[in-house]
Amino acid sequence: MGSSVRRLLLGEPLPTAQETYHRLSKVQALAVFSSDALSSVAYATEEILLVLVLAGTGALQLSTPIALAIAALLAIVGRSYYQTIHGYPSGGGAYIVAYDNLGTWPGLIAAAALLIDYVLTVAVSATAGVAAITSAVPSLYVCRVELCVLAIAFIAWANLRGVRESGTVFAIPTYGFVVIFLILIGVGLIRVLTGNLTPVSTHMESVPEAGVQSLALLLVLRAFASGCTALTGIEAISNGIRAFQEPEAENAGKTLIAMVALLATMFLGITFLTRHLGVAPLEHETIVSQVGRQVFGRGPLYLILQAGTAAILILAANTSFADFPRLSSILARDRYLPRQLANLGDRLVFNNGIIGLALLASALVVLFGGQTHRLIPLYAVGVFLAFTLSQSGMVRHWFRVRGQGWQVKAVLNGMGAVATGIVLVVIVASKLVHGAWVVILLVPICVWFFHAIGRHYAAVAEQLSLEGLEPEEWGELSSSRRHKVVVPVSGIHRGTLPAMRFARSLSKDVTAVMVDVEAEVTASVREKWATWGHDIPLLVLESPYRSTIGPLLDYLRELDHQEADRGLAVVVLPEFVTASRWHSLLHNQTAQLVKRILVYQRGEAAKDRVIIDVPYHLRR
Amino acid sequence: MGSSVRRLLLGEPLPTAQETYHRLSKVQALAVFSSDALSSVAYATEEILLVLVLAGTGALQLSTPIALAIAALLAIVGRSYYQTIHGYPSGGGAYIVAYDNLGTWPGLIAAAALLIDYVLTVAVSATAGVAAITSAVPSLYVCRVELCVLAIAFIAWANLRGVRESGTVFAIPTYGFVVIFLILIGVGLIRVLTGNLTPVSTHMESVPEAGVQSLALLLVLRAFASGCTALTGIEAISNGIRAFQEPEAENAGKTLIAMVALLATMFLGITFLTRHLGVAPLEHETIVSQVGRQVFGRGPLYLILQAGTAAILILAANTSFADFPRLSSILARDRYLPRQLANLGDRLVFNNGIIGLALLASALVVLFGGQTHRLIPLYAVGVFLAFTLSQSGMVRHWFRVRGQGWQVKAVLNGMGAVATGIVLVVIVASKLVHGAWVVILLVPICVWFFHAIGRHYAAVAEQLSLEGLEPEEWGELSSSRRHKVVVPVSGIHRGTLPAMRFARSLSKDVTAVMVDVEAEVTASVREKWATWGHDIPLLVLESPYRSTIGPLLDYLRELDHQEADRGLAVVVLPEFVTASRWHSLLHNQTAQLVKRILVYQRGEAAKDRVIIDVPYHLRR
Repeated sequence: MGSSVRRLLLGEPLPTAQETYHRLSKVQALAVFSSDALSSVAYATEEILLVLVLAGTGALQLSTPIALAIAALLAIVGRSYYQTIHGYPSGGGAYIVAYDNLGTWPGLIAAAALLIDYVLTVAVSATAGVAAITSAVPSLYVCRVELCVLAIAFIAWANLRGVRESGTVFAIPTYGFVVIFLILIGVGLIRVLTGNLTPVSTHMESVPEAGVQSLALLLVLRAFASGCTALTGIEAISNGIRAFQEPEAENAGKTLIAMVALLATMFLGITFLTRHLGVAPLEHETIVSQVGRQVFGRGPLYLILQAGTAAILILAANTSFADFPRLSSILARDRYLPRQLANLGDRLVFNNGIIGLALLASALVVLFGGQTHRLIPLYAVGVFLAFTLSQSGMVRHWFRVRGQGWQVKAVLNGMGAVATGIVLVVIVASKLVHGAWVVILLVPICVWFFHAIGRHYAAVAEQLSLEGLEPEEWGELSSSRRHKVVVPVSGIHRGTLPAMRFARSLSKDVTAVMVDVEAEVTASVREKWATWGHDIPLLVLESPYRSTIGPLLDYLRELDHQEADRGLAVVVLPEFVTASRWHSLLHNQTAQLVKRILVYQRGEAAKDRVIIDVPYHLRR
Repeated sequence: MGSSVRRLLLGEPLPTAQETYHRLSKVQALAVFSSDALSSVAYATEEILLVLVLAGTGALQLSTPIALAIAALLAIVGRSYYQTIHGYPSGGGAYIVAYDNLGTWPGLIAAAALLIDYVLTVAVSATAGVAAITSAVPSLYVCRVELCVLAIAFIAWANLRGVRESGTVFAIPTYGFVVIFLILIGVGLIRVLTGNLTPVSTHMESVPEAGVQSLALLLVLRAFASGCTALTGIEAISNGIRAFQEPEAENAGKTLIAMVALLATMFLGITFLTRHLGVAPLEHETIVSQVGRQVFGRGPLYLILQAGTAAILILAANTSFADFPRLSSILARDRYLPRQLANLGDRLVFNNGIIGLALLASALVVLFGGQTHRLIPLYAVGVFLAFTLSQSGMVRHWFRVRGQGWQVKAVLNGMGAVATGIVLVVIVASKLVHGAWVVILLVPICVWFFHAIGRHYAAVAEQLSLEGLEPEEWGELSSSRRHKVVVPVSGIHRGTLPAMRFARSLSKDVTAVMVDVEAEVTASVREKWATWGHDIPLLVLESPYRSTIGPLLDYLRELDHQEADRGLAVVVLPEFVTASRWHSLLHNQTAQLVKRILVYQRGEAAKDRVIIDVPYHLRR
């Protein structure tokens, strides 16, 4: 029944042969890979203002220079990633680039940073997407946490079914959002320039100038750091180069440029409009929604804007649902995460990674009350750590690979590394106490965890290795007739006879062992043994404390020390299997317990044992 | 570690040989067996008044005739049980008497009724005991539920350690309670008769006479029914006759008479005093405590009274902790309850029964807010059902056994049966809507449950029976060399070699089977097979949906249909066992899953399979 529910929810299993790659045109690829980056314009400006407003409304005017600085950073990082795309045309995620060029530890740090940020991307995108909805429909504000979790569950479900990254499906919301957002900025700018739109009066208490001054530098840095969330997702194209049509790197590079240009335009546009309309952050309505209402009024265009914003944010979360399982499966294949994460499910997706991501992101959303601005201090730390490692790795790469004009390339990537490194320091320093410490703590924990797992798998591989063994030696056979076979019985009946017969077919040396718990039962078994025991001797073990298992284990332990020259110690367990699982509650299940103990317990004197289960199936 | 904590809490295991019976003198036996019966005087009068007070304070005077009726009932039932003791000198619990004389169904009904009432005895005694404490220390009233659960946990712990029913330990609280209670009644009566003690004014609103009249009959019956809780526990001696010194039945009979006399005296005494002092029930203080305060003042005698009351109630709960596990172990031996309940633990007590009782009683206490009067409507239904069945069984017994003066005995038991039967009807009718329906519903459910379990065990016994089998046929041996042996492998390494070698020692017909999930792995195994496979052929199974288990199960199913003349189908599973349980989380554990499926799944064409586990232990 569980299996048919599964089919209904997730669809029929897909054969491995169906795992093909659809190549994307540039227009499709932009839609597929840019949702994460572009969607950040929905909250980046607001996060800048939320910090600045702490120093009073006067400080809000700083948003323009901060936005310009971020746009400049965007250009540098974009240029740097353009290099990466050409340097790693088969896909250059931060983990691969750092691992290849800087070594294991930087690779693992980049991986940890990325995994953490994928979780945060889902949480931030879900809360921001829900905020876009609740701005338009304020009555939904009270159940925003539930809506976020629902949204995450929906995306997880879609991914478990296996949404192929189909360019067409992604194109509608992505380009829809871009178009409505550009219309917003265009119409807004025209109306501002023609004096058609007047600033709203901000209803905020003004803070004395002295207070503002003293806080200025740290606050400006924090505002800048918060705004840097606009850069998240810019690396997406460099991970997915293989999805592009040929020439892959060429097309990917051009798409990257288009994306960076769009992102910079939209981000600067909305920040500029916000300033000129004098919009300040409110608890129940996003900045974008406020700007939209003033420019469009409460008409259909406004509703399209909010719906488009929510849709692209959902798509952005969806991107992480592709990236997180993919990266964790790569780590699992490299033996730094449990193997289960490397298993392709029957719908050709990494089920465990998808479920894990959904659970982690949902936990974050609940923990932070579904509020974007409370999650932001944790965000971007991981991304910029990965950026820095990846760009540094590229510098190293050019020094090793060389080739035409490698010096220029190294300098460009170096600029990227330095810029993102500085931003990383700024982010950590300005947001440390506001939550960044969590990430700073988590990264080394994750890395230690990866390392411990890697060490365990290496130890296992070493122990299982055939090195030092001789095939000839393993070809020699001792006869099974020399094995010492023990059959624990609790009585003599149809459930035990098959086990006894199998034991006799196995070896000449068979002993049946019975633990004497109830005197009458033992006496009755002894009596029947004359008829049914055939040539197997019955050994009755005393059990002063009425334990059925203790005396048996003691006896087996003793056996291990006897007769060094015999074959293996073999335990044949008769087990009667009830017709239903419920029935099994009515039986003592000694056989199962013995089986588990014997498998897990190493024999004494380093002797391994063989455990044989002879089931007898009850029909009722 | 779990085992040493267990030792610390419960003590060293005890050998079976220590299971001896201490014979009790009459004085000791009275202490051991009467706590349940005598302790009911702590609440029975109060429960009568709590019902009468609903008709106004005027109705309280009805308590005297009601108490007299209950005393008369007590005499009849006592006389009847005196007969039972002589009819069943080896112990005549209601289950045994009803089962023996009336058949399976009445026996099971009596058993269900008794088990339910044992649980209620624990709950009622614990809440009433805690009420005695909180009456003296009112500040503890708020945490009465916690105190009740703590008390139950304490008694359960003592019983898990194995408190022997030591007469000396029981004598102090029992006789202490009897003495202080008799002093209370004696001093109280003298002071009342000498006019030294005047009634308190009752602070209750008077109800119009009309209302009282219309409710009278039903209320009086309900008050009587509530007071009948005084009879609970009277059957204890008849269950424990074998603990008496010789002549057992003689001594038990005399002890029963003494107990009934004491119970009647104490119950009538406290009821009479209560009336003459004009005491009415209060929420935070028991009747006994109010009477005690007026007779003794707030001095040491009062505190001894309260402490003694609490102590005997705890002992009363303790009685159920001996009876419930004992009855359920008898039922388990008769195959009407799961076998686990028949297991003597390593401290010679029925652990599972004790733990089950503690959990059920605690749940009741929590559910009913630790208030005695809310539990009372459920109480006594089971006891009187068991009384009626047991006395009816005795009538039948005398008709069958006959012997000297059997007609008189039959009449006396018949009177008991009729009296308790009528009371049962009164209790059910008057308390049905107040909670008795729960018990009325539970009894048939329990009986159905017993019956279903009994049927299952009978079916198993029949299926396991050797009837119809020929010992000679089972003596014939087919050689193990004819078994069809399958070794599922996921690779070739030190973990799989021992299983392959064992399989080769077992049979000539061995096939290694590998499921092709990853093409590279399969290719590498094929390559190594030339060196390490020796004479075992490797069969690679396709897995279009990447399942490792599905294709293997399909293959085995196919095998079942082949070669009718070969030996058994044997699956040899190589299983590497990690050094720690945590490590096992990092592996797919396919062997374990396959093992479980193969054991539980019946082979096709009714062919049983043998599953062999060859563990390879990792050291790190």
